[in-house]
Amino acid sequence: MRLRNKKWAGPWLAAHPDLVIGQTRATELKGHWADLFPRQQPIQVEIGTGKGQFIIGMAKAYPDRNFIGMEIQESAVAVAARKADEDGQPLPNLKFLYGDGAGVETYFEKGEIEKLYLNFSDPWPKHRHENRRLTSPNFLKGYQSVLPKGGQLAFKTDNRGLFEYSLYSFAQFGVNFIPDGISLDLHADEDKMVDNVATEYEEKFSAKGFPIYQFIGQFN
Amino acid sequence: MRLRNKKWAGPWLAAHPDLVIGQTRATELKGHWADLFPRQQPIQVEIGTGKGQFIIGMAKAYPDRNFIGMEIQESAVAVAARKADEDGQPLPNLKFLYGDGAGVETYFEKGEIEKLYLNFSDPWPKHRHENRRLTSPNFLKGYQSVLPKGGQLAFKTDNRGLFEYSLYSFAQFGVNFIPDGISLDLHADEDKMVDNVATEYEEKFSAKGFPIYQFIGQFN
Ligand SMILES: C[S@@+](CC[C@H](N)C(=O)[O-])C[C@H]1O[C@@H](n2cnc3c(N)ncnc32)[C@H](O)[C@@H]1O
Ligand SMILES: C[S@@+](CC[C@H](N)C(=O)[O-])C[C@H]1O[C@@H](n2cnc3c(N)ncnc32)[C@H](O)[C@@H]1O
Repeated sequence: MRLRNKKWAGPWLAAHPDLVIGQTRATELKGHWADLFPRQQPIQVEIGTGKGQFIIGMAKAYPDRNFIGMEIQESAVAVAARKADEDGQPLPNLKFLYGDGAGVETYFEKGEIEKLYLNFSDPWPKHRHENRRLTSPNFLKGYQSVLPKGGQLAFKTDNRGLFEYSLYSFAQFGVNFIPDGISLDLHADEDKMVDNVATEYEEKFSAKGFPIYQFIGQFN
Repeated sequence: MRLRNKKWAGPWLAAHPDLVIGQTRATELKGHWADLFPRQQPIQVEIGTGKGQFIIGMAKAYPDRNFIGMEIQESAVAVAARKADEDGQPLPNLKFLYGDGAGVETYFEKGEIEKLYLNFSDPWPKHRHENRRLTSPNFLKGYQSVLPKGGQLAFKTDNRGLFEYSLYSFAQFGVNFIPDGISLDLHADEDKMVDNVATEYEEKFSAKGFPIYQFIGQFN
């Protein structure tokens, strides 16, 4: 998803450095993210948070966890953060990181994050762009290096090609990444929908009748 | 699938012992299946062949391979074999084995089979019947012990629950069973449909608009 550039985004981000962390500060925060939050509780991160619907919904639904929405597009992270800040009173358990998911290891220590979410990641269907897919092997290695042993990666998408590719990619990890939850039609799985927080893309594509695929895996 | 018992089945099988191999003879044939076929070429086996549409179609499409359709129900294997025998001139590269897929190791030597097919296997949705599913760990171990290193298992189904379960089950094998081909909507994959031979269930369920799932994996 490429958002049209928003002129207000740069200045808005500059004015909200405590809500949206830039890359330089994020690097300094490695090992110290807990300091940003009033309550010491597990930190969960979404990579590619887009306009923030999911991570804001999670922060509201789970006050006993801290959340970070990571996003590479300036306009998107600004829209997300502004939405989170809507009533001038940001959620205490939510921050944003304006940065690249490829850099998770530079931002987080091993075990600093409890769980990672990927939602409706860009599919990059061309073979030569494989390395940009957020479920390609190099990204997975990055995730493994910031999650604790047993830490989960939860991935949702409507994109069949990306999901099929991801199943191959996950399998390359063998027993170092084992499935914890698989659904090939999440919205038909009543049990799993009970605590599902829908993303913007999820609402759009499930309304069109596409199945939503989900894979939750655990790194060892 | 449970077929209504057919009175003619028993006598028909007794009259065609060279086309439909019984369990005792199958055990004796371990290591010698090649002797049954006029041409020495790779042997491929379908477990749960039902009324035989797939295996007969394969035998016709690939005269350079030998095929065995394995089936546990007397009436089904009789229907399948009679269909194969229709014009009184059975295909030289097709036999049936009236037996249980759980017994593959008693019937075949390691490497005697080049490839295994599972098509629309009974889903056994109840947890307590897990061990009957043809993709449960014990069955997979059996398949591994008759396939050569690098030998493939090809699995198709319309049943979402069974396919999801199978993805977990395959993952337990880690790098000893790696995916070679995955489709979450086989009939929408033009490339893969080129040499797809449809089974009876496949025709029925894809006509109803259900996606057909496919997983081809390779044992190491
Ligand atoms: C298709 S949108 C999905 C947005 C949201 N997760 C949803 O489900 O509605 C994918 C988002 O991922 C972001 N993205 C892509 N690659 C990224 C990367 N390497 N690091 C961080 N964000 C990334 C894109 O900028 C875009 O906002
Ligand atoms: C649902 S039918 C599918 C038939 C066919 N493969 C198709 O796709 O149209 C499943 C078949 O598998 C057979 N079957 C089930 N368990 C078996 C086992 N352990 N060994 C051999 N055949 C089995 C059943 O008797 C039934 O004929």
